[in-house]
Amino acid sequence: MAKAVIILSGGMDSATLLYDMKAKGLEIIAVSFDYGQRHSKELKCAAALCEKLNVEHKIIDLSVLHEIAPSVLTKNELPIPDGEYNEDDIKLMAVPNRNMVMIALATSYAISIGAHYIAYGAHADDHALYADCTPKFVRAMEKAVEACDYAGIKLLVPYLYMTKGEIAKVGLSLGVDYSLTWSCYKGGDLACGKCATCIERLEAFTFAGSKDPIEYEEDIEESLEDFEPSRRGELE
Amino acid sequence: MAKAVIILSGGMDSATLLYDMKAKGLEIIAVSFDYGQRHSKELKCAAALCEKLNVEHKIIDLSVLHEIAPSVLTKNELPIPDGEYNEDDIKLMAVPNRNMVMIALATSYAISIGAHYIAYGAHADDHALYADCTPKFVRAMEKAVEACDYAGIKLLVPYLYMTKGEIAKVGLSLGVDYSLTWSCYKGGDLACGKCATCIERLEAFTFAGSKDPIEYEEDIEESLEDFEPSRRGELE
Repeated sequence: MAKAVIILSGGMDSATLLYDMKAKGLEIIAVSFDYGQRHSKELKCAAALCEKLNVEHKIIDLSVLHEIAPSVLTKNELPIPDGEYNEDDIKLMAVPNRNMVMIALATSYAISIGAHYIAYGAHADDHALYADCTPKFVRAMEKAVEACDYAGIKLLVPYLYMTKGEIAKVGLSLGVDYSLTWSCYKGGDLACGKCATCIERLEAFTFAGSKDPIEYEEDIEESLEDFEPSRRGELE
Repeated sequence: MAKAVIILSGGMDSATLLYDMKAKGLEIIAVSFDYGQRHSKELKCAAALCEKLNVEHKIIDLSVLHEIAPSVLTKNELPIPDGEYNEDDIKLMAVPNRNMVMIALATSYAISIGAHYIAYGAHADDHALYADCTPKFVRAMEKAVEACDYAGIKLLVPYLYMTKGEIAKVGLSLGVDYSLTWSCYKGGDLACGKCATCIERLEAFTFAGSKDPIEYEEDIEESLEDFEPSRRGELE
């Protein structure tokens, strides 16, 4: 059976990927990265998803990334901005070159266990936000991964041209348990419903014609209404 | 002044690169990786080179690579093979995808400090030995590094088509202090003179018409004579 290492953050997209690849009959090993993210709840979600699907799960310590390239996601003293993504906030929140680091380490691991594929869940909504989710980056990484070892391991990025809402649709059809996923960048017990990732998540469920099963700190309907005008403006 | 992050192992090639880039007038920050290599003497050499050239030096902890993809270079219980490189030994010695991991982390660091370039010393003699030193791999990584961030950072691999002997020639002309470099894969106080890296190093000095300034465990002339016949055979 072909073996695939999946980069599983514990968010919606990689959770969908996990179910998706498993449904395709691959032997799956999930890897998650602990880079000191304050939203460490996503790591617990990743573990819970793997337990539910009976998939082997490896957490790789990546605290070195925090040390060499600190970001607001790992520095507790800085506040996470509220509201939709904007350029300045992205710069604050982006962990520089995080995806290359994660793909590189997942590939090392995949080679050492004789896997055939590495899969990760970059998608179209991320293109404008993060350089390391763009097709240009992904295409170069596909070639680099294939060339890094004589075994010719392959990088799979099946959602590269799908939106988060479209991924949610796929996930709902596959029965993904989204109650075991986490998106909020803040470190609270409940999702804040106000940060950019929360808003993006809620919009994906709306697009997929469904309701987010996780609990939020405040009334989401109200929160979505608050953001409606500016979001509309930015999307047009 | 343009700023460059150099991946400095403490071996001959990256030491030459360090002198070379510094001679070109760039502001240099050297990074070395501690991945639990038993030849940790190379890290001390890297530090000594930086001190000598008055260059900032950062050691990045990469023990995670040892944990996820153990190799004979990091496992003390396994012996380092003697003699020239052969396919089985390479497989034992190669840390899977090590170069991608190091380039990825060096790039994260470079972005976080606003550097313009990342440089590393892959060369032509490594092409046949390590997939992650081939032009195919390097060309893909150049594209990936440029695309990973909107600042458009560049990967420089100036020795990609040069042999180790040719690099040594450049280094000797630049006055590289090769007594502060280390190649031997074994963890001894003196270089063994018998492992594949020692032989390759000695051949580079012979090619460059010079003598290796470091001390060896045994008489090198004799050691080189021993290997001459088989080496000749393999190179022809």
